[in-house]
Amino acid sequence: MNCSFALSDRLEDLLSGKLITPSTDDPNGRRIAAPTLRELVESALTEFFDSRSEQVAAVGGGYVSAVRDLTEFVLRGGKRIRPSFAWTAWLGAGGDPDGIDAASVIRACAALELVQACALIHDDIIDASITRRGFPTVHIGFADRHRAARWSGSPARFGESAAILLGDLALCWADDMLRESGIGPESAARLSPVWSAMRTEVLGGQLLDIEAEAGVDESVDAAMKVNRYKTAAYTVERPLHIGAVLADARADLVADYRSFGTDIGLAFQLRDDLLGVFGDPSVTGKPSGDDIREGKRTVLIAVGLARADEHAPDAATLLRASLGDRDVAEARIEDVRTALTDLGAVDDVERRISHLTERALATLAASAVEPRAAAQLREMAIGATQRTY
Amino acid sequence: MNCSFALSDRLEDLLSGKLITPSTDDPNGRRIAAPTLRELVESALTEFFDSRSEQVAAVGGGYVSAVRDLTEFVLRGGKRIRPSFAWTAWLGAGGDPDGIDAASVIRACAALELVQACALIHDDIIDASITRRGFPTVHIGFADRHRAARWSGSPARFGESAAILLGDLALCWADDMLRESGIGPESAARLSPVWSAMRTEVLGGQLLDIEAEAGVDESVDAAMKVNRYKTAAYTVERPLHIGAVLADARADLVADYRSFGTDIGLAFQLRDDLLGVFGDPSVTGKPSGDDIREGKRTVLIAVGLARADEHAPDAATLLRASLGDRDVAEARIEDVRTALTDLGAVDDVERRISHLTERALATLAASAVEPRAAAQLREMAIGATQRTY
Repeated sequence: MNCSFALSDRLEDLLSGKLITPSTDDPNGRRIAAPTLRELVESALTEFFDSRSEQVAAVGGGYVSAVRDLTEFVLRGGKRIRPSFAWTAWLGAGGDPDGIDAASVIRACAALELVQACALIHDDIIDASITRRGFPTVHIGFADRHRAARWSGSPARFGESAAILLGDLALCWADDMLRESGIGPESAARLSPVWSAMRTEVLGGQLLDIEAEAGVDESVDAAMKVNRYKTAAYTVERPLHIGAVLADARADLVADYRSFGTDIGLAFQLRDDLLGVFGDPSVTGKPSGDDIREGKRTVLIAVGLARADEHAPDAATLLRASLGDRDVAEARIEDVRTALTDLGAVDDVERRISHLTERALATLAASAVEPRAAAQLREMAIGATQRTY
Repeated sequence: MNCSFALSDRLEDLLSGKLITPSTDDPNGRRIAAPTLRELVESALTEFFDSRSEQVAAVGGGYVSAVRDLTEFVLRGGKRIRPSFAWTAWLGAGGDPDGIDAASVIRACAALELVQACALIHDDIIDASITRRGFPTVHIGFADRHRAARWSGSPARFGESAAILLGDLALCWADDMLRESGIGPESAARLSPVWSAMRTEVLGGQLLDIEAEAGVDESVDAAMKVNRYKTAAYTVERPLHIGAVLADARADLVADYRSFGTDIGLAFQLRDDLLGVFGDPSVTGKPSGDDIREGKRTVLIAVGLARADEHAPDAATLLRASLGDRDVAEARIEDVRTALTDLGAVDDVERRISHLTERALATLAASAVEPRAAAQLREMAIGATQRTY
């Protein structure tokens, strides 16, 4: 697909220990080192899964092991980016990490990880992806189990069917976890339209993405729209918006968060697009030029195609012939890199990243975000949009 | 799959005009004939879809026409069985169809149709079904559009991908519609665990169903469990439960509704199983013996297989060879019918239906359900479980 839900791994360090989280006292009243946000999110998710075990066991059969697969999938990885943005925005709008609302807010933020579980599981079916976070994707895992047990019918079909259902379950459970988070009725009422918009937008972004991949619209605008709804709104803007409304932030602060989030989310994705073609495999963890082989319709590619169509027909032919060719030779990928650079597409995308990042940081600097949270957001923004190839 | 979500068409007449719905006054204060429940549900759904149009238009591109497809899919058909059970249970527990809560309750009941839209759209992918309610299934519709427009990539894959996303959207919107229904916070709090259980159960039932079809467990118990969670709980028990908690029904009334609903739901499905093999196509609207061709693992088949394995090896061979054979000859289907009858499987299932129906009606008769609603439920129960082949 055009762009990934996951942001760069470089964010990982930023998110795994530096966030402001509630501190706790041990039984003797001594202050204990605050757990990381990731730990809090994961323990909220674990508690939620535990709360479902009786109901799942009552259905029985293969449901128990299927839900165990889902639980492991959710708990074993992921950078918890969306909960981190939401939590940081809540802090930055006056939320008290040691206050009585903190635990409920953590649970509401953690529910975002269940929306994301559905997005990843269903996206992996759509993309026919084989691995995810170093493990077989959910549909491949079920297909393998079917094959190993020599059940009847097609293993691939069985795997996809089971994964469709498990993704649906994650989506239902996201709503359940939010409803049961313990946030008060006023918070829930403020959150409802934001939560709703986020899900409607990300599904729209995904639909535009599969259309882009089918070549329905090759324009830069179409690629930017996918980035806007599939990545920027879903990963940064709406999570910040969620944190803001949970803290009952003033309208101008909400607007600043959303503007900052949209710009940074778009810049993140454009950086990812560049890394997908030019990235160092030792940094990105993916084979270099993978986006070409997978035929992703990124803004980088759209800009390159638009420019090539205008004045470089050979480059246009090269780009179209290489996109989505899984067996494309490394030398050909190098030609694509040269063409995108010569066409000015790389400079164009770099300029967009700079412009978006500068505007985002200016919005943040002029906003009423609490200084420690603002520093954190600034660091997250710079860390994920800077050049590392 | 083992059993359908949809109950017999014979219910249609029962549900399309006879239910007690709010009456309204025209501008001159004259009483207007009450709209049918179906009309109220459909107008609530229409209003909900309208409320999303701006957000969908903002995403733009193919999302607008995709959502139009979803809207048409939801509005053009279906018997609104789940809202009907929920509404009738609400009435039967003291809900006032002319009271101030009625419109909110209608909206909450109508949200069940969006859960059902997801179930049908995703089930049609899982079953590789071509048509639904006389139209191409959603994934086939998208594949056709892809093919007609000569987009790149596989039309089938595009169709399934788009349908996965549209099903997800329906599932998200079900929660949105419930949250925005206007039911008060106490009602919402009572409803939450029931709504949650219903979704967790139906997805579990669907998972057991694809396992059953893969031959993981051929037992009668396994087939009954699919009926319990995929049909009875999802279609009757939980909708009644939802109506009951919306009316703040007493615990004993809730228990009676659930017991009645489980028994009637199971009896419905067992009747459907018989019709799937012995039904008159002019009544069922499906080719006779379709369940054999599709290889459904119904209780009827499970009982037949268990009995055949015990003392009729030839019949066992016949059943296993015919199940799922899409090109099976009509004469062979007639042999299967004879075998199931001779094995006593048909009588066994008829006895189960009688026992469940009698127990359900006894529970209802002894319950505190308001008499008009009880009469309605009795009629729905008898109408959908009686012999018509």
